Amino acid sequence: MVIKSSVLQLEPYISGIQPKRDPGVIKLNSNENPYPPTPMIQQWLQSFAMQELRYYPDATSTELRRAIGKVYGIDPSQVFCGNGSDEVLSVLFNICFDAGDTIVTPYPTYTLYKTLADIHQLHCVYVDTDEQFEISIENMLKPASQGIFIANPNAQTGRLLELAQIEQLLQQYEGVVVIDEAYIDFAGPHASALSLLEKYPNLVVIRTFSKSYSLCGARVGYCFASADFVAAMDKCKDSYNLNVISQNMARLAVEDQDYFMANVARVNQTREKLSEALVRLDYEVFPSNGNFLLCRPRRHQAKEIYDYLLQHHIYIRYFPSPRLSDKLRISIGTDDEIAVLLERLNDYEHTVIAIDE
Amino acid sequence: MVIKSSVLQLEPYISGIQPKRDPGVIKLNSNENPYPPTPMIQQWLQSFAMQELRYYPDATSTELRRAIGKVYGIDPSQVFCGNGSDEVLSVLFNICFDAGDTIVTPYPTYTLYKTLADIHQLHCVYVDTDEQFEISIENMLKPASQGIFIANPNAQTGRLLELAQIEQLLQQYEGVVVIDEAYIDFAGPHASALSLLEKYPNLVVIRTFSKSYSLCGARVGYCFASADFVAAMDKCKDSYNLNVISQNMARLAVEDQDYFMANVARVNQTREKLSEALVRLDYEVFPSNGNFLLCRPRRHQAKEIYDYLLQHHIYIRYFPSPRLSDKLRISIGTDDEIAVLLERLNDYEHTVIAIDE
Repeated sequence: MVIKSSVLQLEPYISGIQPKRDPGVIKLNSNENPYPPTPMIQQWLQSFAMQELRYYPDATSTELRRAIGKVYGIDPSQVFCGNGSDEVLSVLFNICFDAGDTIVTPYPTYTLYKTLADIHQLHCVYVDTDEQFEISIENMLKPASQGIFIANPNAQTGRLLELAQIEQLLQQYEGVVVIDEAYIDFAGPHASALSLLEKYPNLVVIRTFSKSYSLCGARVGYCFASADFVAAMDKCKDSYNLNVISQNMARLAVEDQDYFMANVARVNQTREKLSEALVRLDYEVFPSNGNFLLCRPRRHQAKEIYDYLLQHHIYIRYFPSPRLSDKLRISIGTDDEIAVLLERLNDYEHTVIAIDE
Repeated sequence: MVIKSSVLQLEPYISGIQPKRDPGVIKLNSNENPYPPTPMIQQWLQSFAMQELRYYPDATSTELRRAIGKVYGIDPSQVFCGNGSDEVLSVLFNICFDAGDTIVTPYPTYTLYKTLADIHQLHCVYVDTDEQFEISIENMLKPASQGIFIANPNAQTGRLLELAQIEQLLQQYEGVVVIDEAYIDFAGPHASALSLLEKYPNLVVIRTFSKSYSLCGARVGYCFASADFVAAMDKCKDSYNLNVISQNMARLAVEDQDYFMANVARVNQTREKLSEALVRLDYEVFPSNGNFLLCRPRRHQAKEIYDYLLQHHIYIRYFPSPRLSDKLRISIGTDDEIAVLLERLNDYEHTVIAIDE
């Protein structure tokens, strides 16, 4: 057999169900943005010359790195672009770790860090968060390790680790510190670790166009790091890692900051409305800084609500995992979608009461 | 320093120069197809709904795998699709090899195999081809190894290894045999190792949409392997490795076989014409089965011809490497482009003679 035994033993990553597009379906299970990307993309695509497809794309996404650098005030030599932040992470594992190394990440979090550790034959130590899913820097530093991975705001929970805490971590740690800011744009200003980049060369800040820029379908992720780190990533990425269309779509998205900020504000407003409504339905709602809410129905089984919504073509996320199996994760949709969801959750209260009687 | 020393020592891959698009420029340096992809793509893009971009793409490129499977008569469970064949190779390295393993590949060939070996800390043994750049199976089997990589037709040289030779290799070898068929469509029927797939579960046949399907810019590669091998690759690929637009473009390309075959035939005709003309100019031309020709100017320095053409905005490829530095690689362009190239090469003869006198 030519496949490594470590790979044969791997658990595959399980993503949210992708139902067929249908106006009757409400999809709130993958933290996708409910609003389409900037209309500049439509315009650009309509004038795109097919002839261009027969050429290799720019190998280093020069224009895109420049546009990102300009918007975020970082030199393009400190920007790396990849085929989704998954590729950014994958390249990072290749340049930083040897088999047998250890990485540390909180529990719960994005499961890809563990999957990548398994693929690369590293140890992945999960450090439990507290009851409110807050991350303890002190605990994260306890195991000897070569890398620390923190999704901030954290995946699944939406909890935000304060910048001061991240700096405290950087002051005490020599390995690579990866702050995965997939959801940072929903966390308000001053939450990003980007301001620490110049001071700490072992810091890598990962971002994506999937969430706040509504481009899940384009697969563009990026990271900010030291110029040396980016140069090393460039050596290890696939030669032409970003297709010509995605490079241009992401560039147009980052250049249209007004559109982007208006969308983020809308999503955040809907999140607060949903949160209040869930509290009124007697759900415990964890404070979220992402485009989703983690909540615990106090009066019902989470899985039963999940199944009930599924019957009504509303897809939210249920994780059959420790500490999460009594909770539900709901991506923020449009106001209309959330209104339908709340209607169904209200109906559910009455259904259950009716059965109970 | 958080970067591995093995990565710091890596030589980066050097790709062909990508000049700015300009009607005065003739680009014959990256084996791109001179003809645009199927017009079905233009049609599809014009009706593409932007809304779709906010969703994650199909994680396993189901429709694309089905379309490929249908055209090539292989079950979709034996088809893996990736972000260019570079990602296919990268995932293959992750699932097959441990640090310290050895791979074998002929010299010269596509340099990415060696680069990937370096990234993964494997040994890469180059086995020299003969004077006509023919690969010897016997020699390839001599070093103990875990994997053998053969680009067929071979990169840079265009030489084709006969199917009987590949089968002979498979009969004697237990490691993974990777036949990289990026250029196979230009080699006529019956050249592909695909027919050996059922018999040898350690065979992986890699293909790409870049060359014969004119989709360099879309980044879509794929491979055929055993269903077990594909399942292992699926576990180790990035979760959503192919963006929604590239999945659809590749599907449309493979479904339009008539368009595809007409383009391949045109390229092959031009290749034969160019070959004859170069022979008349006293170049040694190596028999090529790719969409390019490797040739050796008998009367001049290759590098000087390369520089001369560059001055006239014609980009071909010069490799300053052992056994290649007296040769030139010319990608097959349109008949018009090749006519201009030949005119310049003729001019060069007279220029040099004028200087000599």
